[in-house]
Amino acid sequence: MVSTSDNSALAPAEARGRFRGGERTATTSGWCGGFAQANLLAVPRDMAFDALLFARRNPRPCPLLDVTDPGDPVPREVAPGADLRTDLPGYRVYENGVLTEEVGDATPFWRDDLVAFLFGCSFTFESALMQAGVPVRHIEQRRNVPMYVTSRQCRPAGRLEGPLVVSMRPIPSALVETAVGVTARYPTMHGAPVHSGDPDVLGIKDLDVPDFGDAVDIAPGDKPVFWACGVTPQAVVMASRPPYAITHAPGQMFITDRTDESFQVIGLDNSS
Amino acid sequence: MVSTSDNSALAPAEARGRFRGGERTATTSGWCGGFAQANLLAVPRDMAFDALLFARRNPRPCPLLDVTDPGDPVPREVAPGADLRTDLPGYRVYENGVLTEEVGDATPFWRDDLVAFLFGCSFTFESALMQAGVPVRHIEQRRNVPMYVTSRQCRPAGRLEGPLVVSMRPIPSALVETAVGVTARYPTMHGAPVHSGDPDVLGIKDLDVPDFGDAVDIAPGDKPVFWACGVTPQAVVMASRPPYAITHAPGQMFITDRTDESFQVIGLDNSS
Repeated sequence: MVSTSDNSALAPAEARGRFRGGERTATTSGWCGGFAQANLLAVPRDMAFDALLFARRNPRPCPLLDVTDPGDPVPREVAPGADLRTDLPGYRVYENGVLTEEVGDATPFWRDDLVAFLFGCSFTFESALMQAGVPVRHIEQRRNVPMYVTSRQCRPAGRLEGPLVVSMRPIPSALVETAVGVTARYPTMHGAPVHSGDPDVLGIKDLDVPDFGDAVDIAPGDKPVFWACGVTPQAVVMASRPPYAITHAPGQMFITDRTDESFQVIGLDNSS
Repeated sequence: MVSTSDNSALAPAEARGRFRGGERTATTSGWCGGFAQANLLAVPRDMAFDALLFARRNPRPCPLLDVTDPGDPVPREVAPGADLRTDLPGYRVYENGVLTEEVGDATPFWRDDLVAFLFGCSFTFESALMQAGVPVRHIEQRRNVPMYVTSRQCRPAGRLEGPLVVSMRPIPSALVETAVGVTARYPTMHGAPVHSGDPDVLGIKDLDVPDFGDAVDIAPGDKPVFWACGVTPQAVVMASRPPYAITHAPGQMFITDRTDESFQVIGLDNSS
């Protein structure tokens, strides 16, 4: 495995403890190698059915790993010792679809009626990409992954609708097929890419101006490859304007106790 | 395929049209050979998150095939031309967990805030069992399948909790392994049995006294085999007492436009 960060060897509980203690980081990409990372969306109980139905109808951007009971901040399936109010490096708070706060501790903003959803994150398959010899440029460049709002609409559910958001990784052309094969084995981490090549197909005007995260240098011979992204629920919150929502800050994920391998589905693809 | 009923050759839309026109039948087992059947649970929007979460946490008894938007009686994923208010042979209406009506047309009892859930039904794999040479006794005896409330509790979700319900099919001992292999290929139709042999293990006192459906004659050399059953949500309604619910009458299922084969997962098991 490529060691990409001093934090790659941390256990998930150690990393979560640091964030709980106030440590911040621009991205958890590369942290806790071998452990699955997750996107957070917390909405009031009144919106929770719509959110769960939205996830069911849009499994590529919103592959569901865990759902809490209303008011319970503990993700009992993927990290029963964690607290979702404190254990991420950064949070965003939305009121009526407008970003009102970006904070390191969501405790003052949590509510007793919040239901939290955790969706798989593509950071999870980055270890497997590197092990297969596929370079991950944003880790090499110590940046957050670039993310873009696309022109593709998700399937609506109740009061929730909005565009698909994608993450982009530049991949050497000769290795795109390998990257497809590796990531297809992680359907709950967004799976295979939704597109590779021309960004215009997804309505993306300029790769140097991502909507979330950092622009990444594209090496000669690299092709841009796009995966469905768990920031999609944030674009949906902005588009649908539910009264209240708390999410992770893009790139600053929840790190679970589950290994990458526990989410790997064998037999889907043998191209790598 | 064993033809077990004059109704086995009907198309799903024809069968649904008959029920819409007022025809009743004690069971849809054996109807519309080759097409998947489904259990119905409709609850007010306020309970829908709990129901969807319950299904996620209990996929063996509640394998989800479709969910409607609030007020929409059309199951758009599995039968976009159907109407869930009229197209089943029989319905049960529950108020505060108490059965108040059993009717052939749910239209007068439908509400604008109802969300309908369809769960896979084990009738769906009965064609495959017969094709594999496994006799299906309740079809031979032209009865409804026997169903039993067990002593096993489901995983609760929000305000919903209750016991697992199972269906039972007597299977010749030498064919139990075949039956396990065939049904394991249908995970969204309850999949492999939860138990075979001693009913006491499930807290079932007397196979001759099912809680739902008909008692079935067990031939010499037959072993009772138990599958998780989509009547479980009705036992949950009775235990949890939500203000309002509409379900199918046990054994009187919704017949979808989707083929059995479309739900078959190849590669799970090669024992048959």
